[in-house]
Amino acid sequence: MVKIDGGVTSPKGFKAAGLRAGIKAGKTNKDMAMIYSDVPAAAAGTFTKNVVKAAPVLWDKKLVENEKLAQAVVINSGIANACTGDEGYENSAKTAEITGNVLGINPAQVLVASTGVIGFTLPMDIIEKGVNELAKVLGDSREDSIAAAEAILTTDTHKKEIAYEVEISGTKVTLGAMCKGSGMIHPNMGTMLGFITTDADIEQELLDKALKSCIDDTFNMVSVDGDTSTNDTVLILANGMAGNKKITSEDADYETFKEALLEINTYLAKQIAQDGEGATRLFQVDVVNAASIAQAKVLAKSIVTSNLTKCAIYGKDANWGRILCAMGYSGAEFDPYKVDITVSSEKGSIKLVENGKATAFDEETATEILSPEVVIATADIKMGEAKATAWGCDLTYDYVKINADYRS
Amino acid sequence: MVKIDGGVTSPKGFKAAGLRAGIKAGKTNKDMAMIYSDVPAAAAGTFTKNVVKAAPVLWDKKLVENEKLAQAVVINSGIANACTGDEGYENSAKTAEITGNVLGINPAQVLVASTGVIGFTLPMDIIEKGVNELAKVLGDSREDSIAAAEAILTTDTHKKEIAYEVEISGTKVTLGAMCKGSGMIHPNMGTMLGFITTDADIEQELLDKALKSCIDDTFNMVSVDGDTSTNDTVLILANGMAGNKKITSEDADYETFKEALLEINTYLAKQIAQDGEGATRLFQVDVVNAASIAQAKVLAKSIVTSNLTKCAIYGKDANWGRILCAMGYSGAEFDPYKVDITVSSEKGSIKLVENGKATAFDEETATEILSPEVVIATADIKMGEAKATAWGCDLTYDYVKINADYRS
Repeated sequence: MVKIDGGVTSPKGFKAAGLRAGIKAGKTNKDMAMIYSDVPAAAAGTFTKNVVKAAPVLWDKKLVENEKLAQAVVINSGIANACTGDEGYENSAKTAEITGNVLGINPAQVLVASTGVIGFTLPMDIIEKGVNELAKVLGDSREDSIAAAEAILTTDTHKKEIAYEVEISGTKVTLGAMCKGSGMIHPNMGTMLGFITTDADIEQELLDKALKSCIDDTFNMVSVDGDTSTNDTVLILANGMAGNKKITSEDADYETFKEALLEINTYLAKQIAQDGEGATRLFQVDVVNAASIAQAKVLAKSIVTSNLTKCAIYGKDANWGRILCAMGYSGAEFDPYKVDITVSSEKGSIKLVENGKATAFDEETATEILSPEVVIATADIKMGEAKATAWGCDLTYDYVKINADYRS
Repeated sequence: MVKIDGGVTSPKGFKAAGLRAGIKAGKTNKDMAMIYSDVPAAAAGTFTKNVVKAAPVLWDKKLVENEKLAQAVVINSGIANACTGDEGYENSAKTAEITGNVLGINPAQVLVASTGVIGFTLPMDIIEKGVNELAKVLGDSREDSIAAAEAILTTDTHKKEIAYEVEISGTKVTLGAMCKGSGMIHPNMGTMLGFITTDADIEQELLDKALKSCIDDTFNMVSVDGDTSTNDTVLILANGMAGNKKITSEDADYETFKEALLEINTYLAKQIAQDGEGATRLFQVDVVNAASIAQAKVLAKSIVTSNLTKCAIYGKDANWGRILCAMGYSGAEFDPYKVDITVSSEKGSIKLVENGKATAFDEETATEILSPEVVIATADIKMGEAKATAWGCDLTYDYVKINADYRS
């Protein structure tokens, strides 16, 4: 498995484009992107569990469950097309139809995604113009994947891309991906969107299974503020153009593919957490020696979501009491007097708590360790051998500023 | 039911005191309080559901479940006596013992409560000195209840007291109360503590039942930051000195008593929310026409806990998409396209959403309505006749400041 400089256009047979259509306010921000596969690709997706699902989520869910093949994805930032009723769904369908017509492909094989303001209707004239222009400039260069990765951002401070090459039965297979994190634009919450392309030849059922198995350990372990969006979507397209021996069972090839996919999703999930609104640092939480993975996940998520803990991380404060408290109200059962808590970073490692009670740790050393851009808290609960990792970020003045300033 | 100017010393036979013993940093803040009943009182309590329970919580839980009678409560602020192991529990027991000896009462009938830093051991010499001094200055005047109410505070900006008089079978019965809200002191989270006194004559089982029935609709519907403390405690002492016909069944007298208790708990819960760390306004959420009270509560709590919604309230932003989104990820099932959302305050009322879609509301009017110190959001989900109310506050720069500034 080799990490390469690339994105969604790295796998064979994938093109992309990103440009400004005019959905977002201002005059310079890109706001529409397209991914295109030369041939119909096996498609799978995972979607928000929010009861309030945006129209594009409903459209994509139906497509990956029934059609199972896709040849293009059209994404807009600026308007989420959520809480827009039947008209919203029709607009998602219409976007797919326009795209199908322009590209000469089956509209039932066009995925759509939106992120931005809730409750506003997509400006279909701008969408139509955008789709036409995107189709014209589709390309498979590095610049094309960068343009697409930039066009899907909202309050993200930078684009998020990754690509890997793996060998499957002696054949080089490439996976590329881009995503955007939780951001806010006038005046509503943002969304986590991820798009993965691969030239691997793999059965749709296995593609779906591989994606879902990764998501639980990656995107589903990220929290910026505990608010689950209406639009969260991760899509994967596998077009088979690498020409590898088709993956048709859960064999070694499948494991190799899944491993690469997990690597990609882990990277993207961490990128989203680190670029959380107003964040100054990535906060990783490892829960180890748990009785079960489920228990470890509940505990890790509770710590990483705790506002008080997030404020402490912002303040570089070795505030272990908040970590133990957040574990305590997580709903998981454990013995507080068996818990060890350690914090670590590139500056070193220090045990703050042993068997539920403070060690005689040096506060200045702890603050030093909590200062870098990536900090890790590890809770050892001594119940078994399961573990889980969650990623989040600190809670800062800027988070409040971004989300309280009206119409910013 | 008449509201009177008073606190925990208002009911007959109750004395209180509050003073500075020297637990908190600084030289001026009061940090110990005592409540004393002339005779043993029926006692009941509700406690944190956090797996990590502070020593005083364990002590009190045992007392109200087994002894069921209490004659004194000793409270300290500054140190939470949480995550302190066997030594912590022994210190709670010792505090009760010292108090019993000084007051000449049964130590097994002394309740204790602590709030403040997690992980530090109580300075028992200071506690002992404090108990001795408190016993000397116990009094039943208004000043005494004020001193006690002040001594239990941490980052609260003001004391929280209330008292009511009710008539039970022709006899005047008084209820008094004080509480403290969620605050943070060096370097850990605070706690919600509530203490209610009454001279009502009521069987312990009914006292317990009345308290628990109120708590679910009041203290358990408050959220400042979603972090449930290790020390949360609400205690009630009923000493029977009003001389009313004893309440021994769930009759009209019981209902009258419960109504007064509900009024008191509602007031205290709202006070805690409004005085949440860094808060500039009280945010009340009403969910109406739900299929069940449980469903209404889940939805109301999810809205009031949403960081994005809390930021919007700080920004006076009629950000209904965040409210609907928070309902959507609450876990409750409902039809988003049947939801109406209205915001209101002393400045008026405006419907933002009708059947899941934005009305053509005027943004300036909405901002005006969201400006006062108390704002209400009402979600009508049109499924039945149940309703619930939750209280919270906005999320502000000051919340982050209070909780991130090291050693503040």
